[in-house]
Amino acid sequence: MIKLVLLDVDGTLTDTRRLISVRAVEAIRKAQKEGIIISLASGNVVPVMYGLKIFVGISAPVFAENGGAMFQNDEIFTFFSMDKPKKLFDRMEGEGKLKGILSNRWRLTSMAYVPTGAVPEQIAAEAQKKDLVTVDSGYSWHLLNKGQDKGFALEKLKETYSLDYDEILVMGDSYNDAPMFKKDVVKVVPSNAEESLKAIADHVAKESNGDGVAEVLQNLQSF
Amino acid sequence: MIKLVLLDVDGTLTDTRRLISVRAVEAIRKAQKEGIIISLASGNVVPVMYGLKIFVGISAPVFAENGGAMFQNDEIFTFFSMDKPKKLFDRMEGEGKLKGILSNRWRLTSMAYVPTGAVPEQIAAEAQKKDLVTVDSGYSWHLLNKGQDKGFALEKLKETYSLDYDEILVMGDSYNDAPMFKKDVVKVVPSNAEESLKAIADHVAKESNGDGVAEVLQNLQSF
Repeated sequence: MIKLVLLDVDGTLTDTRRLISVRAVEAIRKAQKEGIIISLASGNVVPVMYGLKIFVGISAPVFAENGGAMFQNDEIFTFFSMDKPKKLFDRMEGEGKLKGILSNRWRLTSMAYVPTGAVPEQIAAEAQKKDLVTVDSGYSWHLLNKGQDKGFALEKLKETYSLDYDEILVMGDSYNDAPMFKKDVVKVVPSNAEESLKAIADHVAKESNGDGVAEVLQNLQSF
Repeated sequence: MIKLVLLDVDGTLTDTRRLISVRAVEAIRKAQKEGIIISLASGNVVPVMYGLKIFVGISAPVFAENGGAMFQNDEIFTFFSMDKPKKLFDRMEGEGKLKGILSNRWRLTSMAYVPTGAVPEQIAAEAQKKDLVTVDSGYSWHLLNKGQDKGFALEKLKETYSLDYDEILVMGDSYNDAPMFKKDVVKVVPSNAEESLKAIADHVAKESNGDGVAEVLQNLQSF
């Protein structure tokens, strides 16, 4: 029986224009009332996830920066350091290889960027040398510590709520959601998901984005 | 004819538990499609307003910190300085008179607090000596520069869109919304509004919070 649902935000809870689905918001509130734990994991920053948590009414912890930081009970928890991502970011920015994005001012454990003077593969290779990884969230690239991904967020939740993997359902649409699809949980994608993620999913929703989330939350007993 | 609607967030777009109204979100999106300009003004911080703007899909600028900062086109604009609020906050915190809240780390032009060792009136008196003002947003107190209020935000919008006052409708529920009710605009409150604000409103919605917002946005032609 599914007890916890971990949702990606951009492209899953939102459409391609990043508008949040009101159907998904209503389904989340209803599922929570029925005792389901709902959490969110995104590459976005803590204050944006804090706002989402408040306004949507998510009672479980929410994860920012691909699992690097967590917000719960009016407190921010960071699980990785900013040292290495910031150092490499600054160097590559100085070399004109990439450009930071606005939300970097609110980041605590990673840096986000758009490649400018180098191709993503070159930046990834430089990151690897420093024990860092790069990932494309679909909205920007992220420079992260090794192990800093949504699979890490999933493990935190599993531990917090003392759950088994088969009591957890994850839902995401793109490559940066793959780490939570590598666990032995129930893996679901909305119909708009990237093919690589669909290939490793247990179930593909009929509907896209937030409509797909609502569809899945309304039929949790079938998983 | 109303061309622009400026909405408060907490207590107006949200209910008392701070949950955003999906009816209001839908009404905002519909009104925007029909050509109405919608903006938000809150005492909350820039990144939270930035998230709201993205996820709700607000196309106009949004205002944070009671008008002290504005977010638009991936850019932050600040209209007041942090110098005086921060200096007085630090001193009073040192004296044990107040305690800061989590979101202060994201503030650019004001400080938020909960009175601890002093009553709100004492803190207000100290603020006045430094040419600062205090206001209760219902969720915390704010230490602001003089003139930093939602009336200032309204003037910015009026100027940006070259509007007359009677083309602007404002909606809010509490004391920190009063400065936008002192302009010659159309003033509306949801049914849950504070009595002091109801007393100076042109219209009291039948419904409360976000339902009241939806009610007003669906009947804009009647104002």
